[in-house]
Amino acid sequence: MKHEFKPADHTWEGIEPKGYKADNKSEGDGFRGVTKHVISGDRGEPCNFVVRYFEVEPGGYTRLERHEHIHSVTVVRGRGYAVVGSDVHPLRHLDHVYVAPMTLHQFVNDGPEPFGFMCIVDSPRDRGQKATPEEVAALERGAATTGKVRS
Amino acid sequence: MKHEFKPADHTWEGIEPKGYKADNKSEGDGFRGVTKHVISGDRGEPCNFVVRYFEVEPGGYTRLERHEHIHSVTVVRGRGYAVVGSDVHPLRHLDHVYVAPMTLHQFVNDGPEPFGFMCIVDSPRDRGQKATPEEVAALERGAATTGKVRS
Repeated sequence: MKHEFKPADHTWEGIEPKGYKADNKSEGDGFRGVTKHVISGDRGEPCNFVVRYFEVEPGGYTRLERHEHIHSVTVVRGRGYAVVGSDVHPLRHLDHVYVAPMTLHQFVNDGPEPFGFMCIVDSPRDRGQKATPEEVAALERGAATTGKVRS
Repeated sequence: MKHEFKPADHTWEGIEPKGYKADNKSEGDGFRGVTKHVISGDRGEPCNFVVRYFEVEPGGYTRLERHEHIHSVTVVRGRGYAVVGSDVHPLRHLDHVYVAPMTLHQFVNDGPEPFGFMCIVDSPRDRGQKATPEEVAALERGAATTGKVRS
């Protein structure tokens, strides 16, 4: 089974773009300009993982959150950065970032082009827990993270 | 944890390139010119999957084999094709191909550039079973697969 990539609109044949969270919106509580494609793992495949492609528009960001499950993230479009714990990682084409369990993380597009990455997770998995205002405030004071967190 | 991609040699900081199979060779019984990077999943991460990057040099091919576990494959370098069951799928940048359980499959680079793809699998998983000579002969007679299988 092949899903052909369509460069003109950066989508895949037979894969419907979705919003970022369960309500299927790309803007919401703590996130902005994020769409999702489920590349594999939601069509009854006998496997223990889901492969998603997230795209963050210029100025957009994913929600600052944590969860028990890990993220394995590889960039395939544009550039941006990730806040992971107290670190900030600039991310470009094919850079990989690992997000460990219960580590606050956020992906931000601070560039002029869409920022897209593959993100692989376990299936099933726990729901994300949004950072608290106190945690956001602490990151705003952090050596690497000052000015980097979005909400 | 970030593994920075190094475009000059198409490798990742902190990730050692390996051979294709357990004997760590890139040439062997039924395969040629294949290297592997384990992007995530072999460093004790608490997850049920492994993300690998395979690169097939021009003229190279993976082993024609089958196994119980699925493959979720997304192309990130060059082009080539996949034999999957009785089908042949041309593959270019970001094309995705799903390999179902117990389906014979082979990735072939018939182009002038390295052909590279991310391949995600369950962990743990079963070992590959090489196609039998009879199966190879049948594919050589197949409508789509004649002239496409390598060994």
